Amino acid sequence: MMLNTRDRDDFLASTVIKLLKRNAVPNLRRIIAKTHSADIAHWFPHLRPDEKPALFNLLVKEKRMSEVLGELHSEERNLFFQSSEPTVLVEVLKDMPPDDVSDTLADLPLEQRDALLRLIKGSATHAVEQILQYDEKTAGYIMNPHFFALPQDITASAAVERIREMADLEMVFYVYVVDEENRLKGVLSLRQLVTTRPNTLLKDLMTTRVYTVHTTTLQEEVARVVARYNLLAVPVVDEDNKLVGIVTVDDVVDVIREENTEDMLKMAGTGDVDIGSKSILKNTRARLPWLFASWISGIAAGQVIGLFQVQLEQLAVLAVFIPIIAGMGGNVGLQSATIVVRGLATGEVNLNEVWQILRREAVTGITLGCIYGLLLGLFARFRYWNLTSASANLLWFPLVVALSICLNMTLAATVGTVMPMLFKRLRIDPAIATGPFVTASLDVIGNLSYFLIAGVFLF
Amino acid sequence: MMLNTRDRDDFLASTVIKLLKRNAVPNLRRIIAKTHSADIAHWFPHLRPDEKPALFNLLVKEKRMSEVLGELHSEERNLFFQSSEPTVLVEVLKDMPPDDVSDTLADLPLEQRDALLRLIKGSATHAVEQILQYDEKTAGYIMNPHFFALPQDITASAAVERIREMADLEMVFYVYVVDEENRLKGVLSLRQLVTTRPNTLLKDLMTTRVYTVHTTTLQEEVARVVARYNLLAVPVVDEDNKLVGIVTVDDVVDVIREENTEDMLKMAGTGDVDIGSKSILKNTRARLPWLFASWISGIAAGQVIGLFQVQLEQLAVLAVFIPIIAGMGGNVGLQSATIVVRGLATGEVNLNEVWQILRREAVTGITLGCIYGLLLGLFARFRYWNLTSASANLLWFPLVVALSICLNMTLAATVGTVMPMLFKRLRIDPAIATGPFVTASLDVIGNLSYFLIAGVFLF
Repeated sequence: MMLNTRDRDDFLASTVIKLLKRNAVPNLRRIIAKTHSADIAHWFPHLRPDEKPALFNLLVKEKRMSEVLGELHSEERNLFFQSSEPTVLVEVLKDMPPDDVSDTLADLPLEQRDALLRLIKGSATHAVEQILQYDEKTAGYIMNPHFFALPQDITASAAVERIREMADLEMVFYVYVVDEENRLKGVLSLRQLVTTRPNTLLKDLMTTRVYTVHTTTLQEEVARVVARYNLLAVPVVDEDNKLVGIVTVDDVVDVIREENTEDMLKMAGTGDVDIGSKSILKNTRARLPWLFASWISGIAAGQVIGLFQVQLEQLAVLAVFIPIIAGMGGNVGLQSATIVVRGLATGEVNLNEVWQILRREAVTGITLGCIYGLLLGLFARFRYWNLTSASANLLWFPLVVALSICLNMTLAATVGTVMPMLFKRLRIDPAIATGPFVTASLDVIGNLSYFLIAGVFLF
Repeated sequence: MMLNTRDRDDFLASTVIKLLKRNAVPNLRRIIAKTHSADIAHWFPHLRPDEKPALFNLLVKEKRMSEVLGELHSEERNLFFQSSEPTVLVEVLKDMPPDDVSDTLADLPLEQRDALLRLIKGSATHAVEQILQYDEKTAGYIMNPHFFALPQDITASAAVERIREMADLEMVFYVYVVDEENRLKGVLSLRQLVTTRPNTLLKDLMTTRVYTVHTTTLQEEVARVVARYNLLAVPVVDEDNKLVGIVTVDDVVDVIREENTEDMLKMAGTGDVDIGSKSILKNTRARLPWLFASWISGIAAGQVIGLFQVQLEQLAVLAVFIPIIAGMGGNVGLQSATIVVRGLATGEVNLNEVWQILRREAVTGITLGCIYGLLLGLFARFRYWNLTSASANLLWFPLVVALSICLNMTLAATVGTVMPMLFKRLRIDPAIATGPFVTASLDVIGNLSYFLIAGVFLF
């Protein structure tokens, strides 16, 4: 039987916890030696905070901490920084690739970061400092400045010889070809190099049409380029078209995951929450402002109800249907908004199709509204049989709730569709529209339409 | 200046639309020849349905349709199938790799699919039929059955010679090594092959520790393996450990995107919606059942209000605070649930941490509840000054709403955290918990706590 990664994590982590408790260092060493760094990183969420430093120490001694550190979540990375001596930190950071170092240091307070950079010294520091110059979430920031480039006038066999010499460069599958001034001229695959005649010049072999990104290109766009053209890596060039780094597909996979997390959190109106963090303060601070939109809309929806206080005093049963009418509207609106937001993100929905999508959503809203309206009308008729039979006016009551829910679901589907598209056109992130803004407006619309309809038929 | 992919799509698509209208075939041909198939596929959402067949025809004539078809959304793919002659379809399908064919045919009605397969014939059909045997969303279904494997007893130079002969296999970067019975024995990179001494035997060069997946492994797990170990491809083996295919990282990127879309839609309670589809019937049918949960909960929440009808008749202003108390609870609950669902999906939240996460969310809920409770209490005091000054009892009114919102937000954060974790433990997809189920329970809890507190203080 083959365990999946999750079950294996669970199993190994519980073994490691037992061994840590018994301080069984030789056994732990053996397990660590046999385990991939990415797997070791996945043990940490299973450990209690006070168990983690012991494992950090062991990993440092086994020279595995540099690999593991790059794979940890920020919460654990910070714990490592807090619980380790500067000399240990320097030793660990020195063995990491520059893009991992910059990523690791990014969360630290500026002073601590600079202090560490001063301690590392050497050429690595230079690369790290260069990366840190670029804005977060740009190609410059996520790129690896160590890449493999060759001049255009050498032969295929000379190129293979060069590759032989570059022992420690991982992931060579594309060979980038540059001119004397390091300007990107073309690309070829290692396979082309191997299968051509040995004396072919690189410039005769290379493809000159290369998909590139700029140092300032947003990581989202980098991911889109790599995904769309099925690339294994994309070269990063500066304003002079000089090759300065590459972004590999494994980093792109991380970017896609990160961007998706961001979108989901925005849709739920949670701002920039750090999911893994245990800090209540950070968690609260990230969520507080978003809830204000919903506070305001709640007040507004309530004031709408307040306008009809006299009617409510006469017919308190009206209040019974407030939650379902607002709730069904909110849900349909959320459905429509999510479909549009996600469609815009994946490219399945296009701003040019606004009328088609709007029509689809509005008609879906009406259809769903009619079905659930009928259901609610029947419920109102039979649950409140005595009441609705009491006067001629009140016979209309089931119709009122049925009409209200139908109208409200239609409006909700429309608003949920229009809002993200409008945001997109205004070049604001449409994911924001789903959370607080759609829900906010729907609450108000829902109550207003309900009580207006009730006013027409019942009073 | 460098256009990003989206702006370039917009620009090129509008040019193509103009040229199609003028029937300017030579210009269109020139653009098509210069454009990547993945970019051509992105023109289609910009075109009106009646403009699409003309572009299909042109792409077929230019022999580009096979590449483009694999990149289209299902809506457009089906349009192509409907608007083309069988002979054209056969010609297009014959040029596609088997995994793309199976993916393309998957949406079609069984009869049409079998009819087409019979028409294609040949070895390709065999591969396609094999893929179609596997369940959707498994490694067997998404793998490419054409891969590159070599026996273990040949030398590195012989291996390079073999690669030279295999002209049309794309993406050779890993060389898989198998025994006589095609059982996977090891892996080596093309780079190792090139940089070693030519007479080294593959079995002395290869890494024997290979990350593999089974034909039945779910695509989600395949994506996790590739992402975690930064692989460019993962070999797929059958129950006898025989190598039957590979899944490459570009397919994994698509899988990650697809799984994320599914999660988001589930969270919004939309079921299996086809985002790009224009079909109102399909759209309605996918969303209808999910809304039923919210219908039931709306009724239940209303019945809770109904229990306090007498109090409402006495004090209709109570109804004014129903939306904000339920709404704030719902929002905090959605925040917590989204954080937990996403954390579970990315591995940042772990079931072993249930108490830590629960504590963080509950305390966050209380903190946010106190802040917004205070705010709401103040609002109630000043907005309803006359009312609350009217009697000694009613002086408590601001406290009632403040307490209610605070209690409700705390409960909501707790429920929103516990539900997805519970679902996960029961091995049910936690994404389902966020949508209908969390919202449903929160509506009921919200109203109940509000009116109970009101009952204690006011009546």
